[in-house]
Amino acid sequence: MHLGVCYYPEHWPEAWWPDDARQMVDLGIRQVRIGEFCWSRVEPRPGEFHWEWLDLAVQVLADTGLQIVMCTPTATPPKWLVDQDPHMLAAGADGRPRRFGSRRHYDFSSDSYLAQAERITRAFGERYGRHPAVVAWQTDNEYGCHDTVVSHSPQAVRRFRLWLQQRYGTVAALNEAWGNVFWSQEYTRFAEVDSPAATVTEANPAHRLDYQRFASDEVRRFNGAQCDILRRLSPGRVLVHNFMQLFTAFDHQAVAADLDVASWDSYPLGALEMFWFGAEDKLRWLRTGHPDFAAFHHDLYRGMSRQPFWVMEQQPGPVNWARWNPAPAPGMVRLWTWEAFAHGADVVSYFRWRQAPFGQEQMHAGLQTPDRHIDVGGAEAAAVASELAQLPTLQTQSTQRAAVALVFDYAGMWLLDVQPQGADYNGLQLVYEAYSALRSLGLDIDIVPPGADLGAYALVVLPAVPLVNDALLAVLRASRAQLVLYPRAGSKVDAVSIPPGLPPGVLQSLIDLRVLRVESLRPGVTDTVHIDRERHSSTRWRETVEARPGVSVLARYADGAPALLRQGRTRYLAGWFSAGLQRLVLEQAAADAGLATVRLPEGLRIRRRGDLLFAFNYDSQQHVLQLPQANWVLGGETIPAHGMGIARRSAP
Amino acid sequence: MHLGVCYYPEHWPEAWWPDDARQMVDLGIRQVRIGEFCWSRVEPRPGEFHWEWLDLAVQVLADTGLQIVMCTPTATPPKWLVDQDPHMLAAGADGRPRRFGSRRHYDFSSDSYLAQAERITRAFGERYGRHPAVVAWQTDNEYGCHDTVVSHSPQAVRRFRLWLQQRYGTVAALNEAWGNVFWSQEYTRFAEVDSPAATVTEANPAHRLDYQRFASDEVRRFNGAQCDILRRLSPGRVLVHNFMQLFTAFDHQAVAADLDVASWDSYPLGALEMFWFGAEDKLRWLRTGHPDFAAFHHDLYRGMSRQPFWVMEQQPGPVNWARWNPAPAPGMVRLWTWEAFAHGADVVSYFRWRQAPFGQEQMHAGLQTPDRHIDVGGAEAAAVASELAQLPTLQTQSTQRAAVALVFDYAGMWLLDVQPQGADYNGLQLVYEAYSALRSLGLDIDIVPPGADLGAYALVVLPAVPLVNDALLAVLRASRAQLVLYPRAGSKVDAVSIPPGLPPGVLQSLIDLRVLRVESLRPGVTDTVHIDRERHSSTRWRETVEARPGVSVLARYADGAPALLRQGRTRYLAGWFSAGLQRLVLEQAAADAGLATVRLPEGLRIRRRGDLLFAFNYDSQQHVLQLPQANWVLGGETIPAHGMGIARRSAP
Amino acid sequence: MHLGVCYYPEHWPEAWWPDDARQMVDLGIRQVRIGEFCWSRVEPRPGEFHWEWLDLAVQVLADTGLQIVMCTPTATPPKWLVDQDPHMLAAGADGRPRRFGSRRHYDFSSDSYLAQAERITRAFGERYGRHPAVVAWQTDNEYGCHDTVVSHSPQAVRRFRLWLQQRYGTVAALNEAWGNVFWSQEYTRFAEVDSPAATVTEANPAHRLDYQRFASDEVRRFNGAQCDILRRLSPGRVLVHNFMQLFTAFDHQAVAADLDVASWDSYPLGALEMFWFGAEDKLRWLRTGHPDFAAFHHDLYRGMSRQPFWVMEQQPGPVNWARWNPAPAPGMVRLWTWEAFAHGADVVSYFRWRQAPFGQEQMHAGLQTPDRHIDVGGAEAAAVASELAQLPTLQTQSTQRAAVALVFDYAGMWLLDVQPQGADYNGLQLVYEAYSALRSLGLDIDIVPPGADLGAYALVVLPAVPLVNDALLAVLRASRAQLVLYPRAGSKVDAVSIPPGLPPGVLQSLIDLRVLRVESLRPGVTDTVHIDRERHSSTRWRETVEARPGVSVLARYADGAPALLRQGRTRYLAGWFSAGLQRLVLEQAAADAGLATVRLPEGLRIRRRGDLLFAFNYDSQQHVLQLPQANWVLGGETIPAHGMGIARRSAP
Repeated sequence: MHLGVCYYPEHWPEAWWPDDARQMVDLGIRQVRIGEFCWSRVEPRPGEFHWEWLDLAVQVLADTGLQIVMCTPTATPPKWLVDQDPHMLAAGADGRPRRFGSRRHYDFSSDSYLAQAERITRAFGERYGRHPAVVAWQTDNEYGCHDTVVSHSPQAVRRFRLWLQQRYGTVAALNEAWGNVFWSQEYTRFAEVDSPAATVTEANPAHRLDYQRFASDEVRRFNGAQCDILRRLSPGRVLVHNFMQLFTAFDHQAVAADLDVASWDSYPLGALEMFWFGAEDKLRWLRTGHPDFAAFHHDLYRGMSRQPFWVMEQQPGPVNWARWNPAPAPGMVRLWTWEAFAHGADVVSYFRWRQAPFGQEQMHAGLQTPDRHIDVGGAEAAAVASELAQLPTLQTQSTQRAAVALVFDYAGMWLLDVQPQGADYNGLQLVYEAYSALRSLGLDIDIVPPGADLGAYALVVLPAVPLVNDALLAVLRASRAQLVLYPRAGSKVDAVSIPPGLPPGVLQSLIDLRVLRVESLRPGVTDTVHIDRERHSSTRWRETVEARPGVSVLARYADGAPALLRQGRTRYLAGWFSAGLQRLVLEQAAADAGLATVRLPEGLRIRRRGDLLFAFNYDSQQHVLQLPQANWVLGGETIPAHGMGIARRSAP
Repeated sequence: MHLGVCYYPEHWPEAWWPDDARQMVDLGIRQVRIGEFCWSRVEPRPGEFHWEWLDLAVQVLADTGLQIVMCTPTATPPKWLVDQDPHMLAAGADGRPRRFGSRRHYDFSSDSYLAQAERITRAFGERYGRHPAVVAWQTDNEYGCHDTVVSHSPQAVRRFRLWLQQRYGTVAALNEAWGNVFWSQEYTRFAEVDSPAATVTEANPAHRLDYQRFASDEVRRFNGAQCDILRRLSPGRVLVHNFMQLFTAFDHQAVAADLDVASWDSYPLGALEMFWFGAEDKLRWLRTGHPDFAAFHHDLYRGMSRQPFWVMEQQPGPVNWARWNPAPAPGMVRLWTWEAFAHGADVVSYFRWRQAPFGQEQMHAGLQTPDRHIDVGGAEAAAVASELAQLPTLQTQSTQRAAVALVFDYAGMWLLDVQPQGADYNGLQLVYEAYSALRSLGLDIDIVPPGADLGAYALVVLPAVPLVNDALLAVLRASRAQLVLYPRAGSKVDAVSIPPGLPPGVLQSLIDLRVLRVESLRPGVTDTVHIDRERHSSTRWRETVEARPGVSVLARYADGAPALLRQGRTRYLAGWFSAGLQRLVLEQAAADAGLATVRLPEGLRIRRRGDLLFAFNYDSQQHVLQLPQANWVLGGETIPAHGMGIARRSAP
Repeated sequence: MHLGVCYYPEHWPEAWWPDDARQMVDLGIRQVRIGEFCWSRVEPRPGEFHWEWLDLAVQVLADTGLQIVMCTPTATPPKWLVDQDPHMLAAGADGRPRRFGSRRHYDFSSDSYLAQAERITRAFGERYGRHPAVVAWQTDNEYGCHDTVVSHSPQAVRRFRLWLQQRYGTVAALNEAWGNVFWSQEYTRFAEVDSPAATVTEANPAHRLDYQRFASDEVRRFNGAQCDILRRLSPGRVLVHNFMQLFTAFDHQAVAADLDVASWDSYPLGALEMFWFGAEDKLRWLRTGHPDFAAFHHDLYRGMSRQPFWVMEQQPGPVNWARWNPAPAPGMVRLWTWEAFAHGADVVSYFRWRQAPFGQEQMHAGLQTPDRHIDVGGAEAAAVASELAQLPTLQTQSTQRAAVALVFDYAGMWLLDVQPQGADYNGLQLVYEAYSALRSLGLDIDIVPPGADLGAYALVVLPAVPLVNDALLAVLRASRAQLVLYPRAGSKVDAVSIPPGLPPGVLQSLIDLRVLRVESLRPGVTDTVHIDRERHSSTRWRETVEARPGVSVLARYADGAPALLRQGRTRYLAGWFSAGLQRLVLEQAAADAGLATVRLPEGLRIRRRGDLLFAFNYDSQQHVLQLPQANWVLGGETIPAHGMGIARRSAP
């Protein structure tokens, strides 16, 4: 567990570099990421390389004792390259290329840009691949940011046709798989297929879903090419990419498979503002972020990272890119940092060392203000560094497998985006709500890919898994865990259709029911759900389910229709349940799985790592967390507002 | 009166067809629509026809005793055709062509596509035109759906110029008619005129209105060409098109003039969600649709149909295309079906036989679920079939002319769209409100085109007729009916300007007033209207009217200005009155016309056909309808929630 | 002080002209604007001039004793010109040209159109430049209306590159000034720079701000070319342009420097509907406009006009272009007219003489209805004319410099648009709020350009001046006035970056503080501000300020942080204060400046001109204004709803 920072030496006078490096070390920072967007400085004209400044920066940092994470600069090709090869630009759904003048102006399907990206990656790899201070490589930056996964360029369409040919073999198979007999959408040649854009009304959902699958594969191809080069030129170094938050436009699990470490960029306040949270939540958690936001991503990325995951960019203060940009409450930068470690992070790296006074992000805070003074975030980072140093025992704590698994499938997210059936059926939100309900019960959670072995889990939750392939079915059936299936589980079969025996399709082998009908319900429509003697509610979505013999009904809608069903160890939710009802269902499932739970106050959260238990208080009032046999090594059982504590557990 | 269904044999294995046909017959269905979107199956490659499967389907259905409605497949030309002739695609206001990949991907102004449509229509006509089981033809499908009436393609602009030349003769006449002296918009040649798109600020309303008129004429041309072929190749068969709901982008009355039957596609729940109804209404009628919605369209399309109208597609369960898609309340499919018959329908045909498990509409319910079981809608259809069979006397009841006429003019709708003057002045909504007010008084209503003979009506209402041509003026003057003119009646003269003596223009011969000033009023602005001793309200729109001698003031705004005026048998509303005030005004006009009215509860509606009176209860509570001398042949005077009844009236 | 009107003789039969002219004179109108959009009538075909009708119109008007304001018709080039030279069209951010069919369809950067504009201006100038009745020229019409300042056409980009070359000299200097090292945005040649459009995410704010600066300069070039010609061909005539309301897309102060008179087009009701005012304000001031709206623009344009400013177009009734278009309350046309004179106007000219029955503005009221009767606005104009005639002494009253200056900088508006940092940080709104607060204290205000001499002012307010150049700094330092700096004052240095010592940058020489952090706050977040013993509030924006020695804290946020700071005669507001708090701060500053203030009721406003004091009541109830030593020459101390009065002050 150590701290890092993102640094852009090219933004500052050379004369400042030694001071900057020394101040980083003084602050407790051990690792520094550089080179991220510096292509135009390294190669200002075609083939004309200027390494001298970057050599010097590496030397200064290394000499000060810092470890270096070097980046490939492929997210920002220079203008001369774009002008040489305008076809490297991606195109929007309107067919128009998106232009130079910011970043990520390239098409994942451009073979010519891929060659350029490989060329510059080789150049960086040859120059710094074996430098002793270089301990890791970040490929590119935030794949997909600014809606850049999908392109409708001619080159993308050309490659999509090849992809279809490989996937389906014949046009007849494609027509069959997509159901193209519908509306005479049948093709006679692969060359007839376009991207699903500018259609008169919605394109075939199978067409749209396959286009997303294809685009995701293109990201993997692009990243994989860099990894191949760097593994060869920089042996033994860690390969990492900085993924994003609440972002599902490509299959991160597939891309992460080519890396050593999955890292992510954590901006809790910007995310709260820009995503689905309601106005009340946006006020309540204005300066903290939502209590489960960072944890969710820690668990998500840990689940796909071959080595302990990192936070590559940690928000240190106000950002510039949300609709509104408040500052973190005092203490939150420290809290966020510790929470990452609690969830298994090895590195937390702040973005950025110093606020830049120019360019698009000049209103984005850093650890230092533009005039070279330590800012609030810098002071809190120093506090964490100091606490880490005082508790060397922490470093030995490794992260165990949790007892609860939440299955997360990117393709399922795309399916629900392509075919929501109700305007507010947001699959990711439902995953998040399930996660939040589990975590509010004090449970540790692993978020796992759909093919992952589930043998060791006591409770497995599938909040948004409409597509169930053979591998997933096999592990679900092999598992002994309590299973909780949310609505639409198994509701679709590949590319995209309704399973022959109706949903939940192959999951009928776990719970024998037929979903006869689904309804999406506008805001304001609320169904009452009766469970035990309690009344709860459901909104947005309701399923009419036929329960076959052997299936019992645990909860009913007001008209008597089944709302929650169970067969053996499998539960099925026939609606989008309220937060309270989700918690109750998961609490009962956890009890059946033999797991102890506790109903935590809304802002209080806990997480175990090794024999330590971490507690985090997102609330603006203090909470007391009584742990009978705990020994507090940091803080105590009274967790102050926006504060945290660490206790050693007697029993792991 | 009989039932039908929409069927796509090409979506299912041949082996299922005989079973499907037999089950249809068992359910009580007599007529089946096929062939609608099957072009790519009939002609998979240019000129290569595969009739064998369709021949077989026709034979199977015919052998089972079903009557066939054959469709021309022109709404879904196959991809090879689009690639052969890319100029057949329509273009949006941005000039970009809309592409293949869904349906309706053609331009009404494409001469080459028209030739193709004629070619495939001839092929179908030659093949099935004289088949004894083929009793009717549907041309194309839902003209205009997905905003496809207006195109800004080069071919559309070229034909628009010809259209202008025919309409105006000289450019000078065009400039004069459009008022092009305004802002130096004068042309020197017809070839200078473009479509009214991409202008710096709004285009000339005359330009916009004429473009809509032109586009409407293009639809009629396209449909007429198919009719000509089918009349020749399939003599004696009924020609029909399935029009849409709440849709006015072309002149349906003109297109219907070339057909035998005007049919429409009835989706009451989708319409409630997607149109102007307020949040409260959307909750109240969530699973029923608005009580006047289907009736309005029945009366509208009956008014333009040369033979009794049909419902071609009746919603049988949840659909896939609204923002939210709830299910009909139990009983509603039966209610909707009966209501169509009550309003004069000859056929109610469900969409579709079985829910398709693939393609864009896989979440659209059918009479059967995808796994071949009867769904809720199927069961209710069977109930209607059974009731029909038990009441053979119903079949002799024909629809009489009503005592109330509502004049509906498509060009008036376009004018109000082009020039609303207030953001929420929705002409169609105002028509609907007037219709709803009349119907809430228990009146039967005919909706008639602007030129229709009004001699037999006692009460004539013009809710949104800004353009009054000579024919309309003549029938209004010849009529002896009580006339109710809503605001903006006669407010514009052709292509588009203010009448010389101010609105209501030529209607001043019926009521001698001058509209000096109009105001559109934002939500929240409410005017009180004093009438008799009651206080009502008006919103959105207010006119300042100068009443000349002979005109009396029946209601006044709070400041004393006239709100409702009357001269002889003509009333004029100088505002957008509340529902209650509209009802009061129409109630008084009906009384003056010698018509009996009754204030029905909000969810209860009645309609007469022959000597039968039908009652429909959209409410979720029962209502009692006391009819002293009625003999209930179905149900009784207590109409259950979502139920209906039929009574024989002693006096017609 | 006299009245004018806008007239389009080409819209009416020649036979009406003499009557129209006589009726204008009878109404009390002295001046008539003509020719504004008449290009297609003067030159219906290339080089084929038809002056005869315009000669006649000029003669008829002149013979009736009217003074003529002639317009150049360059806002509406005819279609034949556009077809000759399609590249004269401006392009949107999507690169697509905006087309003929309304008005303002030209690109300020088109050299070829500039030549055409010069040609037609010369033709007009030669024809009417020395006509004795022609007293003034209006160039073009409403520069920038319909978002026409910025173009992304090839010609605009080409000229932008030249502009950059002139501004920066070398590409290296450009890269340095823009901070292009950020994200490898560096250029190697000026020819590589595009317009800041279609970038993947936001373009560099420096790029965007410079594009706005460039576009503004292009407007000045275009207007200047016309001025040069007219000064030569029409010596001694007044050159004027009609600017718009709440519009800042180019530097009006720079354009006005080439004119004699800055005039503006006043539509108080349309503006209320279309701009930032809240729903409550939009209802309260529905038929009056906001009480400070017209006054703000009078003071703004007076501040840049070399001779007394004009209102070129005064709203006379409902307009056609707002979302909703109510009518002015009775009396408001008179009130608005008098208010313009009170603020120093020399002419108030109504738009338009008669409502046109055709074209885009056929729903825009005039002084006459389309059928040639005097409308409400006409009657009120006549009332003003009569009052003016009865008070000849008014004509001798000239406008003095006020004691309060509000500094208004167009470039600052652009900066805040480019980089709001919070979605509702609307710089113009903040200026307006400051103005409104000052005016609610009964103060007269001068709105002055950033370089203006401030020597004579007692109080100077900078509500939205993020960019402080040397000239402004010099006059601020030279001033003895009380200074009130709103948030973000001096927060940026040229093209666009954070000042080296943090904001307020060079203003630190006036008040020695560092703005360490800024936060934008979503609606619903309210900070309490404690000042003296009062509690006020702040929203939207909060700054964390470090006060250095010598700076005192006058108000604090609830957590003790400074909210209002003061050093010597300079105050700094560290937040977006509520209206009440702004008023309090400005009241205290005025007191320190020795200025008497009075807290006026919300709808009551006063303004002095010479030794007269004008009072205006926007409220719907009367207010009493007690002025001990005043002699009311029009009305009295009880100002009726929507009424006004004029008092002679004993002491000026």
